[in-house]
Amino acid sequence: MAEPILKALLFDVFGTVVDWRTSIVREGEAFGRAHGIGDVDWVAFADAWRGLYQPSLEEVRSGRAPFRQLDDLHRMSLERLLGERGIKGIAEAELDRFARAWHRLDPWPDSVAGLARLKRKYILATCSNGNVALMVNLAKHANLPWDAILGAEPARQFKPLPVVYLTSCQWLRLEPAECVMVAAHRSDLAAAAACGLKTAHVPRPLEYGLGRKPDPGAEPRARTDVPRADVPRAERFDFEAKDFNALAERLGC
Amino acid sequence: MAEPILKALLFDVFGTVVDWRTSIVREGEAFGRAHGIGDVDWVAFADAWRGLYQPSLEEVRSGRAPFRQLDDLHRMSLERLLGERGIKGIAEAELDRFARAWHRLDPWPDSVAGLARLKRKYILATCSNGNVALMVNLAKHANLPWDAILGAEPARQFKPLPVVYLTSCQWLRLEPAECVMVAAHRSDLAAAAACGLKTAHVPRPLEYGLGRKPDPGAEPRARTDVPRADVPRAERFDFEAKDFNALAERLGC
Repeated sequence: MAEPILKALLFDVFGTVVDWRTSIVREGEAFGRAHGIGDVDWVAFADAWRGLYQPSLEEVRSGRAPFRQLDDLHRMSLERLLGERGIKGIAEAELDRFARAWHRLDPWPDSVAGLARLKRKYILATCSNGNVALMVNLAKHANLPWDAILGAEPARQFKPLPVVYLTSCQWLRLEPAECVMVAAHRSDLAAAAACGLKTAHVPRPLEYGLGRKPDPGAEPRARTDVPRADVPRAERFDFEAKDFNALAERLGC
Repeated sequence: MAEPILKALLFDVFGTVVDWRTSIVREGEAFGRAHGIGDVDWVAFADAWRGLYQPSLEEVRSGRAPFRQLDDLHRMSLERLLGERGIKGIAEAELDRFARAWHRLDPWPDSVAGLARLKRKYILATCSNGNVALMVNLAKHANLPWDAILGAEPARQFKPLPVVYLTSCQWLRLEPAECVMVAAHRSDLAAAAACGLKTAHVPRPLEYGLGRKPDPGAEPRARTDVPRADVPRAERFDFEAKDFNALAERLGC
């Protein structure tokens, strides 16, 4: 049987397309200045906020909590982190605005130009755990030219559960093998590969900051994980590219 | 209370953004030539195909049939119409290709430029009965710059049922009053208004061809309709514009 023709690229977003950490640190510093909070390490705060991400998703994946938009989970984690630091009395609208810092993340330097090239030949869709409003506002902020916003909200579940990848393909009316999952994280790619998607690995060595190990396996094998292929070694990804421009080159755009 | 700020425009697509009839006639003529079919009136065929649209949606709205992507309903209607005309023996792949003629509709002359202007200030989303794949491929074909594809598939129901408009707002995390439904069809706008959305009427006098009555009330009040406001008179729409450029002007873009 002939190799299927690739038609769509599905993108992980946080870490793969946008640099969440630098942006959240910047937003935290601005929040601190606006509210006269002088004694918070906003780098540690950003890491702690992201650190609560997987546990909050796991509540949903495990069935202990119903599906919620990631915006709500970000807001709940934020309240917890501020509470732990004794920060009180912030107006609701200000908390909302800070929780929506995740709508204002900056892209990696190659993201916009690389996506524009890739869009000439392929359907570009998000396959993120971010909800639709978050992804839409982020695309407006960062100039990301998506053809469709897919991922967690259509599936009402979170990656790496298979339903998220498979619903994204089904809504595009494509076979998994006609779709390429693009991510910086090997566990995300392994879960997509187990669903039959092709995989493209784009490492983002600065995701967790200079000198810190990237891709620490952000989507751990938890007890709710369904069986899936082992994390493939680098040479087992269908495509490997140092950034989105290189990926465009590799995919003939 | 202050009037809410408008943030998103939700668009009906077939008839409002694209000229389905001229495009389907052209696709029918090409299909006829390719298969040596000489005795079919493709204008009447296009009207008959569109004529089966509301009855096929009504099967789902009524609960008699489960939700299906509009692509499947288009394909089923196509087979029926070809059968009625004694056209047989067409290969599956060719039938699929013809059914996907709805992915290759041309925009009205003002659509692309008008949407580009509107996009500078607003979130632009589809709120169509077309499924996501159809809307994505149509956007690629016609160069429509959507920020998100919403409407029937997220809601797993068809307009004018309220869940379709309300799910679109909810996925954008906006109040209905922050969203404007844009359509050529008064019944669509009336249903949106009953859900609390603002309305913009853009008449498309050529939708059904020169000299034929536009907007014949394509979404009839059927027994499955929930109670809703009467079709508003023209002066009751929040905005009225002769095309998308005029709408952009009206909305301060």
